[in-house]
Amino acid sequence: MALLFYSLDDDAESWGRELRRHLPDLDYRVWPETGDLAEIDAALVWKPPPGLLRSLPNLKAILSLAAGVDAMLADPTLPDVPLCRLVDPSLTRTMSEFVLLQALKYHRGLDVYAGQQRAARWRLHLPLPPSATTVGIMGLGVLGEDAARTLRGHGFSVRGWSRTEKRLEGIACFSGEAGLDAFLAETRILVCLLPLTPETRGILDARLFARLPKGARLVNVARGAHLVERDLIEALDRGQLAHASLDVFQDEPLPPDHPFWRHPAIDVTPHAASYGLPESAAQLVAENYRRLREGRPLLHVVDRARGY
Amino acid sequence: MALLFYSLDDDAESWGRELRRHLPDLDYRVWPETGDLAEIDAALVWKPPPGLLRSLPNLKAILSLAAGVDAMLADPTLPDVPLCRLVDPSLTRTMSEFVLLQALKYHRGLDVYAGQQRAARWRLHLPLPPSATTVGIMGLGVLGEDAARTLRGHGFSVRGWSRTEKRLEGIACFSGEAGLDAFLAETRILVCLLPLTPETRGILDARLFARLPKGARLVNVARGAHLVERDLIEALDRGQLAHASLDVFQDEPLPPDHPFWRHPAIDVTPHAASYGLPESAAQLVAENYRRLREGRPLLHVVDRARGY
Ligand SMILES: NC(=O)c1ccc[n+]([C@@H]2O[C@H](COP(=O)([O-])OP(=O)(O)OC[C@H]3O[C@@H](n4cnc5c(N)ncnc54)[C@H](OP(=O)(O)O)[C@@H]3O)[C@@H](O)[C@H]2O)c1
Ligand SMILES: NC(=O)c1ccc[n+]([C@@H]2O[C@H](COP(=O)([O-])OP(=O)(O)OC[C@H]3O[C@@H](n4cnc5c(N)ncnc54)[C@H](OP(=O)(O)O)[C@@H]3O)[C@@H](O)[C@H]2O)c1
Repeated sequence: MALLFYSLDDDAESWGRELRRHLPDLDYRVWPETGDLAEIDAALVWKPPPGLLRSLPNLKAILSLAAGVDAMLADPTLPDVPLCRLVDPSLTRTMSEFVLLQALKYHRGLDVYAGQQRAARWRLHLPLPPSATTVGIMGLGVLGEDAARTLRGHGFSVRGWSRTEKRLEGIACFSGEAGLDAFLAETRILVCLLPLTPETRGILDARLFARLPKGARLVNVARGAHLVERDLIEALDRGQLAHASLDVFQDEPLPPDHPFWRHPAIDVTPHAASYGLPESAAQLVAENYRRLREGRPLLHVVDRARGY
Repeated sequence: MALLFYSLDDDAESWGRELRRHLPDLDYRVWPETGDLAEIDAALVWKPPPGLLRSLPNLKAILSLAAGVDAMLADPTLPDVPLCRLVDPSLTRTMSEFVLLQALKYHRGLDVYAGQQRAARWRLHLPLPPSATTVGIMGLGVLGEDAARTLRGHGFSVRGWSRTEKRLEGIACFSGEAGLDAFLAETRILVCLLPLTPETRGILDARLFARLPKGARLVNVARGAHLVERDLIEALDRGQLAHASLDVFQDEPLPPDHPFWRHPAIDVTPHAASYGLPESAAQLVAENYRRLREGRPLLHVVDRARGY
C-alpha cells in the first residue's frame, strides 16, 4: 500500500514530511519514482498527465491537491474511484482574507480613487459604514460560507446564493435559479466562489450583469471559465459594472497580450487568492488515506453527477 | 449662553439637528448669523477665519470639529480657553477600517501585483499568514490604539510607538526616541497616526526610512507635514521603501501637477481615511457643552504645551 504524489506546482518534499507527521509508516512515492505500480492504492495529485492514473491497476482513491476538481473531471480517462477534493483550514482562511480585502477595497472606493489619481483629481467620497454595503457571494460551500461569515464579522451586509437552500445566521440566503434575481438585485459587490460545473460555466455573463445594480463590482476568485470575458469588458465599458478584480482566467498564465492586463477597470492577480499549504493541509489528506486503509468512508468526496 | 458653529466642510444643519437631540434647549447659531456675540460661550469650529474666535468676548471653550488640532494651534490669535478635540466612535471605526484595508493590501501584495499588471507579468507570491507580517503604528492614542487592536484581531503582528510608555495586550509597545530604533527595525508596514506637533513635524524622513527594513511600506493617515516629501520619493526610487499610501498632504487638495499623483509606487486618497459624522459625533460634543454649562471638567482637552 503506497501513496503516489504528482504535481508540478506543489512541493513534494514538504508534502512528504508533513504527511509522515500524521502517518509515520507512510509508503510515499513521488512521480516518476513510482516503484511497483501495483502497490499504489491512492494518488495525491494536481493536473496529472492523461493516462497516469489509468496506469495504476489497484488505485482505490484520488486525493486532489486543489479545492476545485473541474480540471480533473474534464479528463475522460479519469478512473472511476472516489475523488476527494482538498479542504484545508489555512486555504479557507487565506481565501476569506482575500475576499475581505477586495470587499474593503471597493467599500472604501480605492478603485474610484485610483481612477481619480490617474486624472490628478481630488474628490472626497464620504465613507459609509460597512452595513451600507451589500456583498453577495455566489457559492456557500466551504469557502463561500467562511468568506460570508468573515464579511459579516466585519459589519458588511452579506447575502449568499447556493444550489440547495441554506440557513446561515445573519446572512440572507438565496438558492437556485428562482432565487438568483432577488439575490443579484441588491448586490453591490459580487463575489464568485462557485465550483466550475456544466451549470456554472459562463454564469458571469451579460444577462447576469444586467440583473445587478448599475455600477456593481465583481470579484472572481473561483474559475476563469465562470466568466464570459467579452461580456465583462462590455459591461465595464458601458458602466453597468464599475470595476472587476479577477484572480482566475480561462488561460493561466494570462497571456501577455490579453486585454485584461491593460483595462483600467480590471485588477489582475495571478491565481493568488489562496493556496493549500502542506503544513496545514496534510492533516485532512492523511486522515482520508487512513480511512481508505481502514475501509471507512472518505471525507470530501466529489459527487461526479453534480460536478463538485 | 449660545454655541456658535463655523465650518465650510461640515453640514451645519445636521450638526444642529443632532446636537439638539442631546441638548433640546440648545441656542445654536450658525455663522454668519451670530446674533449678540457676547452671548456665545462656546464655538464648534473647523478652520475658523483668523480673528473670529477672538471677537467673542465671553468665549469659554473651543470645540474642534476635527481630531487633529494642529491647524487651530498654528493660529497665533487663538483665545486662551480650553480647546477640545473631536473624539467620535464612528471616526475611530472608519480609520481602523482604512488602516486594516491598507495593511491587507500590502500583506497580500496588491501593490506588487499592480506593478506586475503594468508589465503584463504573471508571477505568484505565496500568501503568508498575517502573523508573518509586522505592522508598526506610530501614535497609540484614540485612533492608533484602536487601529492596533483591529489589526491584532485580524492576526497581524502589531507593534506601536508612543511618547509615554504603554502596555497593550498582544501589542509590542515602544516609546520615545530611545524606543524608536527597535520599533522601526522589524516594521514591514509603517502606519503614521501621530498628531502634528513641533516634535513630530517631518518625522517621516530619510533618516527614519533608513531604519526600516528594506522594502517596507508606508501608510500616512495623520498629517501631510509629518512627511518630508522629497525624502519619500528618493526612498521609493532607491527601493528602501517599496510603496506608500498617502491620505494627507502638505497642500490639500494636492495640486494637479504634484509628482505624487503620477508616481507608480504611491497611492493617493483625498483625506478620505475617516470622517466625523454628526450622527455619532454630536453626543460627545453635547456632553462637553453640558459640562461647560455645569462647570464640570471638559473631556479631550488639548494640552497646548505638548501640542495635542
Ligand atoms: N482562486 C483561488 O485561489 C481558489 C482557491 C481554491 C478554490 N477556488 C475555487 O473555489 C471553488 C469553491 O470551493 P469550495 O471549497 O467552497 O466548494 P464547495 O464546498 O463544493 O461549495 C460549492 C458551493 O457552490 C454551490 N453551487 C454549486 N453549483 C451551484 C449551482 N449550479 N447554483 C448555485 N450554487 C451552486 C454549492 O451549493 P450547495 O451548497 O447547495 O451544494 C456550494 O454552496 C472551487 O471549486 C474552486 O474552483 C479558487
Ligand atoms: N486622515 C484622516 O482622515 C484623519 C482623521 C482623523 C485624525 N487624523 C490624524 O490622526 C492624529 C491622531 O489622532 P488621535 O485621536 O489618535 O490622537 P491622540 O489620541 O492625541 O493620540 C496621539 C498619540 O500620538 C503619540 N505621540 C504624540 N507625540 C508623540 C511624540 N513626539 N513621539 C511619540 N509619540 C507621540 C501620543 O503618545 P502618548 O500616548 O504617550 O501621549 C499618542 O499615543 C490626529 O492628530 C490627526 O492628525 C487623520
